[in-house]
Amino acid sequence: MSKKEYCGLFAIYNHEEAARMAYFGLYAQQHRGQESAGIVTWDGEKIREHKGMGLVPDVFTERHLGKELKGRIAVGHVRYSTTGASLIRNAQPFLVRFGNIQMAIAHNGNLVNTLELRRELESTGSIFQTTMDSEIFVHLIARHLHNGGVEQAIAKACERVRGAYSLLILVNNKLIAVRDPNGFRPLALGRVQDAHVLASETCAFDLLEAEYIRPLEPGEMLVIENKCVRSVTLGDPAPTRQCIFEHIYFARPDSTVFGEVVYENRKRMGQILAREAPVDADFVMPFPDSGIYAAVGFGQESGLPLEMCMIRNHYVGRTFIQPSQTMRDFSTRIKINPVRNMIKGKRICIVDDSIVRGTTIRSRVKKLRELGAREVHMRVCCPPIRFPCFYGIDFSSKGELIAANNTVDEIARFIGLESLHYISVEGLLSSVQAKDAWCLACFNGEYPVAVPPESGKACLENEIALSW
Amino acid sequence: MSKKEYCGLFAIYNHEEAARMAYFGLYAQQHRGQESAGIVTWDGEKIREHKGMGLVPDVFTERHLGKELKGRIAVGHVRYSTTGASLIRNAQPFLVRFGNIQMAIAHNGNLVNTLELRRELESTGSIFQTTMDSEIFVHLIARHLHNGGVEQAIAKACERVRGAYSLLILVNNKLIAVRDPNGFRPLALGRVQDAHVLASETCAFDLLEAEYIRPLEPGEMLVIENKCVRSVTLGDPAPTRQCIFEHIYFARPDSTVFGEVVYENRKRMGQILAREAPVDADFVMPFPDSGIYAAVGFGQESGLPLEMCMIRNHYVGRTFIQPSQTMRDFSTRIKINPVRNMIKGKRICIVDDSIVRGTTIRSRVKKLRELGAREVHMRVCCPPIRFPCFYGIDFSSKGELIAANNTVDEIARFIGLESLHYISVEGLLSSVQAKDAWCLACFNGEYPVAVPPESGKACLENEIALSW
Amino acid sequence: MSKKEYCGLFAIYNHEEAARMAYFGLYAQQHRGQESAGIVTWDGEKIREHKGMGLVPDVFTERHLGKELKGRIAVGHVRYSTTGASLIRNAQPFLVRFGNIQMAIAHNGNLVNTLELRRELESTGSIFQTTMDSEIFVHLIARHLHNGGVEQAIAKACERVRGAYSLLILVNNKLIAVRDPNGFRPLALGRVQDAHVLASETCAFDLLEAEYIRPLEPGEMLVIENKCVRSVTLGDPAPTRQCIFEHIYFARPDSTVFGEVVYENRKRMGQILAREAPVDADFVMPFPDSGIYAAVGFGQESGLPLEMCMIRNHYVGRTFIQPSQTMRDFSTRIKINPVRNMIKGKRICIVDDSIVRGTTIRSRVKKLRELGAREVHMRVCCPPIRFPCFYGIDFSSKGELIAANNTVDEIARFIGLESLHYISVEGLLSSVQAKDAWCLACFNGEYPVAVPPESGKACLENEIALSW
Amino acid sequence: MSKKEYCGLFAIYNHEEAARMAYFGLYAQQHRGQESAGIVTWDGEKIREHKGMGLVPDVFTERHLGKELKGRIAVGHVRYSTTGASLIRNAQPFLVRFGNIQMAIAHNGNLVNTLELRRELESTGSIFQTTMDSEIFVHLIARHLHNGGVEQAIAKACERVRGAYSLLILVNNKLIAVRDPNGFRPLALGRVQDAHVLASETCAFDLLEAEYIRPLEPGEMLVIENKCVRSVTLGDPAPTRQCIFEHIYFARPDSTVFGEVVYENRKRMGQILAREAPVDADFVMPFPDSGIYAAVGFGQESGLPLEMCMIRNHYVGRTFIQPSQTMRDFSTRIKINPVRNMIKGKRICIVDDSIVRGTTIRSRVKKLRELGAREVHMRVCCPPIRFPCFYGIDFSSKGELIAANNTVDEIARFIGLESLHYISVEGLLSSVQAKDAWCLACFNGEYPVAVPPESGKACLENEIALSW
Repeated sequence: MSKKEYCGLFAIYNHEEAARMAYFGLYAQQHRGQESAGIVTWDGEKIREHKGMGLVPDVFTERHLGKELKGRIAVGHVRYSTTGASLIRNAQPFLVRFGNIQMAIAHNGNLVNTLELRRELESTGSIFQTTMDSEIFVHLIARHLHNGGVEQAIAKACERVRGAYSLLILVNNKLIAVRDPNGFRPLALGRVQDAHVLASETCAFDLLEAEYIRPLEPGEMLVIENKCVRSVTLGDPAPTRQCIFEHIYFARPDSTVFGEVVYENRKRMGQILAREAPVDADFVMPFPDSGIYAAVGFGQESGLPLEMCMIRNHYVGRTFIQPSQTMRDFSTRIKINPVRNMIKGKRICIVDDSIVRGTTIRSRVKKLRELGAREVHMRVCCPPIRFPCFYGIDFSSKGELIAANNTVDEIARFIGLESLHYISVEGLLSSVQAKDAWCLACFNGEYPVAVPPESGKACLENEIALSW
Repeated sequence: MSKKEYCGLFAIYNHEEAARMAYFGLYAQQHRGQESAGIVTWDGEKIREHKGMGLVPDVFTERHLGKELKGRIAVGHVRYSTTGASLIRNAQPFLVRFGNIQMAIAHNGNLVNTLELRRELESTGSIFQTTMDSEIFVHLIARHLHNGGVEQAIAKACERVRGAYSLLILVNNKLIAVRDPNGFRPLALGRVQDAHVLASETCAFDLLEAEYIRPLEPGEMLVIENKCVRSVTLGDPAPTRQCIFEHIYFARPDSTVFGEVVYENRKRMGQILAREAPVDADFVMPFPDSGIYAAVGFGQESGLPLEMCMIRNHYVGRTFIQPSQTMRDFSTRIKINPVRNMIKGKRICIVDDSIVRGTTIRSRVKKLRELGAREVHMRVCCPPIRFPCFYGIDFSSKGELIAANNTVDEIARFIGLESLHYISVEGLLSSVQAKDAWCLACFNGEYPVAVPPESGKACLENEIALSW
Repeated sequence: MSKKEYCGLFAIYNHEEAARMAYFGLYAQQHRGQESAGIVTWDGEKIREHKGMGLVPDVFTERHLGKELKGRIAVGHVRYSTTGASLIRNAQPFLVRFGNIQMAIAHNGNLVNTLELRRELESTGSIFQTTMDSEIFVHLIARHLHNGGVEQAIAKACERVRGAYSLLILVNNKLIAVRDPNGFRPLALGRVQDAHVLASETCAFDLLEAEYIRPLEPGEMLVIENKCVRSVTLGDPAPTRQCIFEHIYFARPDSTVFGEVVYENRKRMGQILAREAPVDADFVMPFPDSGIYAAVGFGQESGLPLEMCMIRNHYVGRTFIQPSQTMRDFSTRIKINPVRNMIKGKRICIVDDSIVRGTTIRSRVKKLRELGAREVHMRVCCPPIRFPCFYGIDFSSKGELIAANNTVDEIARFIGLESLHYISVEGLLSSVQAKDAWCLACFNGEYPVAVPPESGKACLENEIALSW
Repeated sequence: MSKKEYCGLFAIYNHEEAARMAYFGLYAQQHRGQESAGIVTWDGEKIREHKGMGLVPDVFTERHLGKELKGRIAVGHVRYSTTGASLIRNAQPFLVRFGNIQMAIAHNGNLVNTLELRRELESTGSIFQTTMDSEIFVHLIARHLHNGGVEQAIAKACERVRGAYSLLILVNNKLIAVRDPNGFRPLALGRVQDAHVLASETCAFDLLEAEYIRPLEPGEMLVIENKCVRSVTLGDPAPTRQCIFEHIYFARPDSTVFGEVVYENRKRMGQILAREAPVDADFVMPFPDSGIYAAVGFGQESGLPLEMCMIRNHYVGRTFIQPSQTMRDFSTRIKINPVRNMIKGKRICIVDDSIVRGTTIRSRVKKLRELGAREVHMRVCCPPIRFPCFYGIDFSSKGELIAANNTVDEIARFIGLESLHYISVEGLLSSVQAKDAWCLACFNGEYPVAVPPESGKACLENEIALSW
């Protein structure tokens, strides 16, 4: 079922070198998915595609970009899945043909009624090719296509699915972009020369020297065809529930996401945290790299010097996105090395963006102790994560979330800290701009879209996992 | 549409090392398809698969056979397609899952109403994954599955399709083998230890030291499940129309096909040909390797010495199965070299199995002339091929069949022969055992199953080729 | 030490597409070595090279032939080594540079004083890169180069080495071909357009449509430079001792080797054998493919019908050249399948070229018995092989040669034959043309060039094997 | 000639999992060379090796570490070469065998009399396999080996070569480490459990949890055999001339190099720079990542806030080590993206470690202007680089060093800065500990070991480049 997906989306309409632009658009968003990458183009007669496992530069060669992926429209996708089955079969964009229609779909987010819909479709003869949520859209669209055009069919499909989705759909000469009614996942519109561009994050626009126009609205469907861009509102309105974790951790700091600058928000979290929970220490230090911007804010607000004395090995990837559980400890050790002389005898305040399971941080703090740190304090710029996300962020299951089962004091003891403070939910909300527009389910368990009961869900997943 | 397919099928039910047996069962039938190979197994819970482009030994490694392809049931397939698009996507067995059913299908033969069925299915929401005939079966079965079991659904599907098909279907714990009502393509049943085996040709049984039991009957569906083998007759009876080209050229001489020994039939063609068209020559000579058995028969009947003085480079494949048109001339030259001293001043009688386009033979005869041959005669042990095959043998299009547009004399002149004789249809039929049971459409244009009008067909193929 | 090498040599001087010609020159000689292939060219300024493990078509791509291997002079080599260590490091031609000289050497044959020379060279500072005999030449040449030109240095090197060698040396703009004083291994000169060509066998010339001129003489060094071909006689004359096994088994039947046509010689061996040892049988049958030409001769002389009813799987290589001992049995089974109906109740006479260890033949005869053969006789067109070869043919060690330790009767019993006859040495010699010019050491133990005592040799080989 | 090499060395003696330790020892030093990696081990009887192009994790698999690279002694090497020819042939450690001696050598540094020595050796029969400096050692050692043991031969070889070298030599059961008399390149000794370890940088020790003992002395040869470690002083004493660029840029900040902590030195450079050249700006900002530690020091000393608003794409490597000139501009753009909102209207002070050609910095500054920066100042924590390095650091040729041909004012104008200040040589020297022990040739042109005249050198390089 490939629950829990990160993904990065990119599309461009009406550009000489559409595929090459898509390549760089994905390249800039590589942090959103390192497992597979794909680009499809429309060459005027048919959709061309290339997909592969691995990083963008490993998947595409000059031959793909210069020769094979012809056409002025391109849609690209990078994907990261936490399920064991990392299969090329599940790489996106997902391409199908029915009759004289060719359609490619790229999806970011996670649906909550996949299994129910899949059973219904299969029992009436649909044959699924993959385990992806995204294929649900395709079959729903295929069923609705003969009574009306493709836009109506997409709208109908969106009425059936529930959950989080930002979609890019290439269908013959048309590019269609959709953001779900709650607006869980980002999607932004831009412009470069005569072309329209769409991306999950604006850092993709910067690399292409494209101009950022605006985020898509929740529940908006954008249809681009020839020179024309039409905006359609899908179904019934719903409260906006943007994923605040994009700002805490997931998005690049140089991106604008949901219309807000990530770097500024992240630094402000550090400043508010410094006010909420001051500390008496020799210096402030991030565990690179995600906590660094909050640490800058914390340092400036508190007046404590900032040191960068946890040295990262630049030839290793980031911990949060590690392929297998068994490698996590290895990665922690190999990724960061403290400057010994800077640690010995010091009172250190670590600033980090979040604590999920706490095990990596614990082993790092242990290392600091071994090297002679006198005191180790910690300040965290998101509230305790107590509930799993069903809309596309991978916080393992509830059992693995340390804050779901432990008090802050217990966590401090587990990690081995002199003091530990989390930012408050109010503090966090005052760090961002939009008011009452955020999904906070992982902090407070209030899920904007109802999810199936735990037991049922697990059972369904097993059922499918068994056979695929 | 992947018209014109050769293929080799193999299956084994209830064997410790089912995948390994399938490997060798395909290996022995490699001549039936060198483009791709695949094996699926049923491990008791799910179907496992491995497929790849290339020869059997290139596709499978010890890891696949010893570890991954677990289970006591296996189905294998080798494939050769003459269409430009040789895609891994089109490799077989073809595997689908719907609901809790997993099904793999391997197909040899060619359907004639594919496009019509495909359009019908797509217009009601089916999404095709490939361009193969075989996928038609899958969607038809999926549509019929909810009213009755899998066997009924297969029977229903067979009622809808028209053309040539031998099928092997693995569905959960069950193995189902089908031969179409006309029996165009072969399929034989055998036994080894406690296992049942099925193969296109019995040479596969010999390699596995399996005992040959009998050919499947035309229109027979065999259902193997646990210890039980049930035989079901499909639909309405039809006249048996076995492909005589299996005996002329395609099958291995050590195989029994449609219940008859290929070597004996092929040698007998040569003997009858020697009686029908005697020749005054210094010696008889095959163009290795396919004509060799007819040449042995011709030599024995005529009393002329047999010489083997066209030397084959053992590191090249056989001409008839060449991947691309552009390489044919190269292959002809590199494949065979005459022993010069044996040719000079001699009157030579070439015996060969067939003439399709005549261009390869022409260039070889030209070479013999250059080396000083005094006379070159030719005897061919199949009648002139004047009509294309729509049931699975690749004689290019009608325009390329030399006998479609030329008299025997014209062909002799084209090739540059002192004399040329083809075996008569009667002579051919007296070389084989079964009476009135053969498809002779390529010789006489009488198609046992009606085919769509030429123009329509070409147009349909283009339509799909365009978009894939 | 890479004892026991087969190899195929090819060179061309002054051709527009020298590398492409070399490719096909090697392709035609692929039977002489399937382990590795290499081509070097001189582009006017430097030697370019490409080598790889595997068959010629696997090693070279259009890029190599069309772009990288520039120049009008090319030298190629195919190699087969029976030692376990099949290393790319040991592929030829072997290329070195010293000062402003670049030299590539391709070698067919085996030296007998390699180890002695190697020790001497290493003790004075030479550093060897490989375990090949051929590198001895290179270091000897390097040592002699500063007092005289490259030709003198090669002549000096040839004075030091003892054993079998045909050499092709490319040094800057010059191509030098050498055949050792006894002429153990073949090397032929030809011409195509304005180019000179050299090859181990003339089948390479046929493919290139080159004209065969003559074999090199034993002890002849040919120097080709610009338009000029000079012939130099090396050192003291020695009796000519050509390897008769090239005619019995190794060379292609369409080749002229040592100036004699292989097909004719091989057929004549069968004829003489039929006279020396007639048989009362239903038919004569080769074990394809090597015995086929002798079987044709035997059939014609004896009047028995020739049947080709042992069917070869064309997708497997030849038994004699199998990479590893453990695979031999597997290969035997998979390679040949008898036509069952032809065997049952028959009296069969097998004609084969040679018996080395007898185990493969034994298992095949056993199979014939199982299929109901009434009598199995065998006629072999070379005398019993009783002694190992030290000049480049791989008959395992003496312990493995069945005729070294058993009488003909014992061998017949071992294999399970009604009768067994070998051709006599006199019969063999009357099958070929040249008189008193053959190495018969494997039959009679008379080694034309003295070899080190058995024990010493083994010990030396171990010593090196240990460290490489 | 592979001039200008970076390299990382690692060795371990007497460890159960020597190869695995070497893998991580190289992994931690990956920044010293990304082109190729290699490990050799001594298994008690012979040296085993594996080398490949690419990063450490790409070159080695579990099979290499767990099975093939057996033994308790291992030597590893990572390499980066700036010459066009990045060949596997040139990967290290370099392995040779002569007689019963097997030797592997790993080399960091650059010799200045390579060509002279090579000519001398080749004219007396030595055959070189590579274009590496390191092979000179091997041939010199081979020549000296017969009069004395391997240590004497190494000592003799070191007497002949001139230039920079840290060496690790594995010869049978012995591990020998050498640092050249001037001590240009680092080499440190450590200990883990019962094993001795050697590495270019101590970050390798940290990862392995090994204890750092001391740097090797300039001119010291360490011989490790069984439980015994002997220290030998080579030849005549020379003034210590350590490469100060290791501290400015090249080494990892968490390493101790030449006995000094890189992080502290680098931060101190920033502090001294803040005192030497204060600035009136809104904030200090590094161009990540190399300038970050100096920026921390500058910020603390000056009291200006530090911002990290140039965001690095973590999926790209560092600019200084780019494979080809043509990609540099692309890399600059793709590597770093400014946070737009932080730049607009600001007075920015950039702190960086060095300016080589200035083109990358220029394009970044231009970008800041385009985004609306009000003022851009720059502070550089090494003096102007005016002279090329012949001992192993790649500052292109003199023509490409911007400071060789331009005043500081001219550079400021070229880059487009409001102000530019370099640290003074005195300031730099007061940032580090050792007194009068540094090579400053790149700043002042005083070369500790004489180099061949410019013209001669270029010509020699061309001569060799031509033929390889």
